[in-house]
Amino acid sequence: MRVGVDVGGTTVKIGFIDKGEFVHTYAIKTTKTDLFDNICKSIKEYAEENNITIEGIGFGMPGHVGNNYIDRLPNIGLADFNIEAHVKKYFPNVIIKSTNDANAAALGEYLNEHKYNSAYMITLGTGVGGGYIVDGKVVEGFNNNTGEIGHMVIDFEHNYKCSCGLSGCLETVSSATGLVRLAYEYKNKFKSNIDFDNITAKEVCDKAKEGDELACRVVDFAMDKLALAISYVVLTVNPEVIILGGGVADAGDFLIDIIQKKYQQYAHYAVTNLNIIHAKLGNKAGMLGAAYLW
Amino acid sequence: MRVGVDVGGTTVKIGFIDKGEFVHTYAIKTTKTDLFDNICKSIKEYAEENNITIEGIGFGMPGHVGNNYIDRLPNIGLADFNIEAHVKKYFPNVIIKSTNDANAAALGEYLNEHKYNSAYMITLGTGVGGGYIVDGKVVEGFNNNTGEIGHMVIDFEHNYKCSCGLSGCLETVSSATGLVRLAYEYKNKFKSNIDFDNITAKEVCDKAKEGDELACRVVDFAMDKLALAISYVVLTVNPEVIILGGGVADAGDFLIDIIQKKYQQYAHYAVTNLNIIHAKLGNKAGMLGAAYLW
Repeated sequence: MRVGVDVGGTTVKIGFIDKGEFVHTYAIKTTKTDLFDNICKSIKEYAEENNITIEGIGFGMPGHVGNNYIDRLPNIGLADFNIEAHVKKYFPNVIIKSTNDANAAALGEYLNEHKYNSAYMITLGTGVGGGYIVDGKVVEGFNNNTGEIGHMVIDFEHNYKCSCGLSGCLETVSSATGLVRLAYEYKNKFKSNIDFDNITAKEVCDKAKEGDELACRVVDFAMDKLALAISYVVLTVNPEVIILGGGVADAGDFLIDIIQKKYQQYAHYAVTNLNIIHAKLGNKAGMLGAAYLW
Repeated sequence: MRVGVDVGGTTVKIGFIDKGEFVHTYAIKTTKTDLFDNICKSIKEYAEENNITIEGIGFGMPGHVGNNYIDRLPNIGLADFNIEAHVKKYFPNVIIKSTNDANAAALGEYLNEHKYNSAYMITLGTGVGGGYIVDGKVVEGFNNNTGEIGHMVIDFEHNYKCSCGLSGCLETVSSATGLVRLAYEYKNKFKSNIDFDNITAKEVCDKAKEGDELACRVVDFAMDKLALAISYVVLTVNPEVIILGGGVADAGDFLIDIIQKKYQQYAHYAVTNLNIIHAKLGNKAGMLGAAYLW
C-alpha cells in the first residue's frame, strides 16, 4: 500500500492509499520536535495493527525540498534534515519520496482528473503556490523552484512588501491574505457592508457575490492580476488545464467566471480557449499526490 | 544522415548532419509556390549525388505547426498543409518531424551546449520567440504554444499595439523592432547621436554602449521588461539556463550584464543565481535542432 503524508504548519495528514483509493486517513499534530519520528511511529503502528505492507511513503512539505533534503523550513522547525535517512530508520525497505505541498496537491488533483496530459495547479491560500505536472510527473525544475508563481512581481500599483523580500508579488494581492489586505486598502474609498472585525477572504468573496462595491473592487483587482499571471504561465508552458485550488478558489464558479473574463484581455489568440477548473479533492489532494510521487 | 531544414521568410537553410556535425549546408530561396516540392527535390538531388542515405528530415517553420500540420502560415503562403504527406511523396521511408523555428533553434543551442538538463531559449529578432527544452526534447505544450512569451502583456506604459491584436506585448518593446520603436518614442525627449535615417536595433545597442543618452534609455526600458519576463519564466518552470539568441542578443555581454542586473530586481531569493548565456550557433541552430527532433 502507498502512504501519502501532507505536512502542514499545524497538522500532518496521513493517508493509506490502495490503487488510487483512500483506505484510511487521519491526522496528527505537527510537533516542533521529533516530527518525523512521530510521523513514522504513527504510520508503523497503524500498518502493524492492520497487517499492511507499505510499498512507499511520500511527503508533501510546506516549503522547499530537494532530493529528500530539507535545507530550512522554519515554520516547522526543520533545518539540514535528510528525510530519507530519517525515515529509513523506521522503514528500511520502502520507497521514500518528497516534494513541496503545492506540487503534491497538483499531482493529486491531476491524478484525480486523469484526463489531461499536462496541468498547472495554482493554489490560492495564505500565499499563492503552483505546481506543474506533465505525463503524471511533477516538474520540479532545476533547483526545485518550479511553481513559485506567487512571487511574480506583478502589482506595480500597490507594491506591497512580500514575505520573500520583494514587493508587488502576485501573492500580496491574489492570496487569501491579499484579498483582506486590499479590502483594508479600499476601506475608506468604497461603500461596503463588510464586517471588518471578522473579515476573511471568504467574507470578501461572499460580499462580492452580493454586489458589495468594495468587495467587488477587491475581487476585480486581485483576479485581474491572477489572470495576468495565468496568461504568463500559459505562454511559458501551454498546459492543457489550469487547476485552481486553495481557500479562495472555494468561491467557485463566481470566481472562475471573473478570471476567465479577465484572462481573455491578456490571452494571445492561439490560447484564448483555456480550461480553468476547480480543484476537487480539497485537503486530500496533498496526500494523494504525495503517495504517487513514484 | 539527418537533414535539418530551417524555413525562413526569404531563404530555406538546409543542413546535412552526421553525428551532430554539419557535413554540408546550403540555402535555397523561399518560394511562394511549390515550396516543399522545391525543398524535397533539392535534398533528394544532393543526397543522390553524394550517395547519402537519409534517416530523417526535420523542419523548423516560421510559425505555428502541430503534428506536421500547418494550419496557416501567411508569410510563406501555406495553409491547411500536411508536411508529412507531402514529404513522403519524395521520401517514403524517412522520419519526418517539424516544429516552429524558435523551438528548433532552442533545441539546436541546447544540444550544442550539451551540459544542461533544461533550457529556455529566448530569441530577440523581429519578434520575441521562445523555446523550452527538457531532457533533450522540445516541450511543445498542449496546442503547441509553449514559448510564445513574446506575447506576454507586460508594458502598460506605452501599450503599443502588437501584430497579434493585443497591446503592450513583450515583443513590442524588447524585440529588434521594439528597440527602434522606443528610439522614435524617445526621439524628442533625450539627447542622441543616433542616425535616425539608418536606424537599426544594432545601431541603438552600439550607441548605448557608447553612453548615448537616448539609446541608454531605450535599452534600459526594453531590457527591464525582458528581465521581468525572464523572472516569470523562471518562476513558472525553473529552467537550468536561459539562452538568449537573435539579432539583438548579438550585442553580447553588454546586454547580458544589463539583463542580469535588471533580473535581480525581480528575482525571488531562491532563483537569484540564474544562468543567462548567449546563443552560439547563430543561424545554424535551427537546422541542428530540426535535425534532432527525433
